[in-house]
Amino acid sequence: MALTVMKFGGTSVASVERLQKVADKVIKKKEAGDQVIVVVSAMGKTTDQLVSMAGEISDRPSTREMDVLLSTGEQVTIALLSMVLNERGHKAISYTGWQAGIKTEAVHENARIASIDTSLIRPQLNEGSIIIIAGFQGVTETGDITTLGRGGSDTSAVAIAEAFAAKRCEIYTDVTGVFTTDPRFVKKARKLKEISYDEMLEMAYLGAGVLHPRAVEYAKNSHLELVVCSSFTDEEGTVIKEEVSMETSKSVRGLAFEKNVTKVTLLGLPNNVSAVSRVFDTIADKKINIDVIVQNVLDEARTNLSFTVDHELLEETLDVLRGSEKELGYQQLIYESELAKLSIVGSGMASNPGVAAEMFHALASQKIKIKMISTSEIKVSTIIDEAKLIEALDTLHETFHLSEEESVSL
Amino acid sequence: MALTVMKFGGTSVASVERLQKVADKVIKKKEAGDQVIVVVSAMGKTTDQLVSMAGEISDRPSTREMDVLLSTGEQVTIALLSMVLNERGHKAISYTGWQAGIKTEAVHENARIASIDTSLIRPQLNEGSIIIIAGFQGVTETGDITTLGRGGSDTSAVAIAEAFAAKRCEIYTDVTGVFTTDPRFVKKARKLKEISYDEMLEMAYLGAGVLHPRAVEYAKNSHLELVVCSSFTDEEGTVIKEEVSMETSKSVRGLAFEKNVTKVTLLGLPNNVSAVSRVFDTIADKKINIDVIVQNVLDEARTNLSFTVDHELLEETLDVLRGSEKELGYQQLIYESELAKLSIVGSGMASNPGVAAEMFHALASQKIKIKMISTSEIKVSTIIDEAKLIEALDTLHETFHLSEEESVSL
Repeated sequence: MALTVMKFGGTSVASVERLQKVADKVIKKKEAGDQVIVVVSAMGKTTDQLVSMAGEISDRPSTREMDVLLSTGEQVTIALLSMVLNERGHKAISYTGWQAGIKTEAVHENARIASIDTSLIRPQLNEGSIIIIAGFQGVTETGDITTLGRGGSDTSAVAIAEAFAAKRCEIYTDVTGVFTTDPRFVKKARKLKEISYDEMLEMAYLGAGVLHPRAVEYAKNSHLELVVCSSFTDEEGTVIKEEVSMETSKSVRGLAFEKNVTKVTLLGLPNNVSAVSRVFDTIADKKINIDVIVQNVLDEARTNLSFTVDHELLEETLDVLRGSEKELGYQQLIYESELAKLSIVGSGMASNPGVAAEMFHALASQKIKIKMISTSEIKVSTIIDEAKLIEALDTLHETFHLSEEESVSL
Repeated sequence: MALTVMKFGGTSVASVERLQKVADKVIKKKEAGDQVIVVVSAMGKTTDQLVSMAGEISDRPSTREMDVLLSTGEQVTIALLSMVLNERGHKAISYTGWQAGIKTEAVHENARIASIDTSLIRPQLNEGSIIIIAGFQGVTETGDITTLGRGGSDTSAVAIAEAFAAKRCEIYTDVTGVFTTDPRFVKKARKLKEISYDEMLEMAYLGAGVLHPRAVEYAKNSHLELVVCSSFTDEEGTVIKEEVSMETSKSVRGLAFEKNVTKVTLLGLPNNVSAVSRVFDTIADKKINIDVIVQNVLDEARTNLSFTVDHELLEETLDVLRGSEKELGYQQLIYESELAKLSIVGSGMASNPGVAAEMFHALASQKIKIKMISTSEIKVSTIIDEAKLIEALDTLHETFHLSEEESVSL
């Protein structure tokens, strides 16, 4: 019998009324003959409320205790959803992370799943019960509660689907699928029928926000078919899988972007490998994530090094760099804020070398200045003024014909 | 090193502000040199709110899922209290019921603690950490979350104190101790310095409400010294222990009472043991608790049987009895509501046979009609009109000189 894992996020389970709608979808799936495991997040703003209570107590509460605190959110949801399903005549059993045998590494607030002991749930699943599992959480070998960090429930769902060899994992959310770009910003944005893991990864990492990249990585590694679809409608979603059939001409599949980007530049850094790596070590020690990196060698002795950070992390980044000025040996530290990162993504790009040039040309035609460029096999990212972002998105959406329906060959 | 278990109820932990006050008391105890285990309830109205959410879903939600739901309440408290203590420079670690190794029987909503695996916490305790444990909850052998039912956190605290061989268990609550009777009803009610387990048990069972009887039983069986005291003041509380020294004349130690009592009477029941036991079997099958029982034999063939139930259970009780009318063979079913149960309690009573007569006389002098009587070694209970309760309490408090300070011999 086929098994489907269905994951519902916080907005989808925000109230008892919405839990009834979730139950509709779960029951429909169950009655179609599948075995069903449901993974849920905390209800609506629950996590935020718990975080804010902790914030009343401490600026930096113990991460172990934060996990104890936050994990209650999903525990409430699993109990209530099970009750809803029971009340509607379906046998449902709830499991917290530790009850479901979801073991993680011993890291708090951002743990990775190490293993899932399927023997704890398999008998109930085989007896026909609907299994409801708390997402976002697990337990260490020594019995400490852990959480998986942002987007953790997606990761839980995919890891569970993999462990139980599910035929697919459906991520129900408040959008109807994955779009060519964010429809809140570009009116002509179009929902994609299919997208490859790699494309989705780039989209996710680049701030498309629908699905957590860690979950996509998991799915990619285990060749698990993911579906992103709406909790609130019956529209078909977007399938994320290994190979996506499409017109070869459609080399760009989507536009990803990110706001609040700041570019930090170290001028006159000593031109040697150890100086550059020392900069990134210094920053990494403070757990500051940096993104696009561009290095520009001036002469044999000196080099300029630029990278981007989220604007929220700017102060901390500057503090760290200023504090290590002598050690790092740069001549000047400058930065530029109110930037955005804009990227074109598509698996077909690797075989289409002209795509990047087409992008730069389109932006130039609108007098949008490109401040940094970074490329990978399947994407080209540019850093531009945030004020020009919408205009740039519209232009590129047009340039790459993203509004036009693609023909999916079977 | 001496170990003290401190238990704080829902009112005492109702807000972050109150958690700070709890921390004051915990830190004071810790700094006095004791090892400290703290047992906490859910914050304020949390449990009620969770119950009400479940109530939106089902009139009779799965008891297993109710336990999953309700146990989140204490889990939030342990995390926040640990954060408060950490923030104030004290090492504190939280444990849920299952993390603390609190194993219960496989019964939901009203489980009994079967064992506590102290090895899970002992090392951290010995290292000097303050241990914070979620009350009210445990886990079955098969990993299901259970709760202990009403007053469960008291029971958790006492069971933990016993398992860890604590020198004493302090129950912090919103009253300052155990009173001769409820001070909200009798102004002259006086706080007792000491009370015996047996007296406390009768007071607790009879609705004194300060401490759950199951906790007192636990403490009695393990000869553990209990203290009931206030979370909000530094007043000395009431010590509950085996032997209480007192003036022998003070045979009555307190007045316990209960409102919303209904008397149910079966008239003309066949006069044989099996008929009477069949009545109680029928009621017990529905898990209806009955209290005072009085049987009055009419003749060789017939008997009248009366008992009391909480008014809330009246409809259910009547349904059960009417449904079994033929099988039970009674002639008529009548009931009387708006009654109260009023009891005098005191260990010295057994050796003072005149005490019951003194009680009846005092009530009669106020024209308070006694509808049922039930006695034990250390208490005499009467059923009277609820409308007369306050008057009766005042009269008996006066009659038995309960406002007068007792001399405690050392």
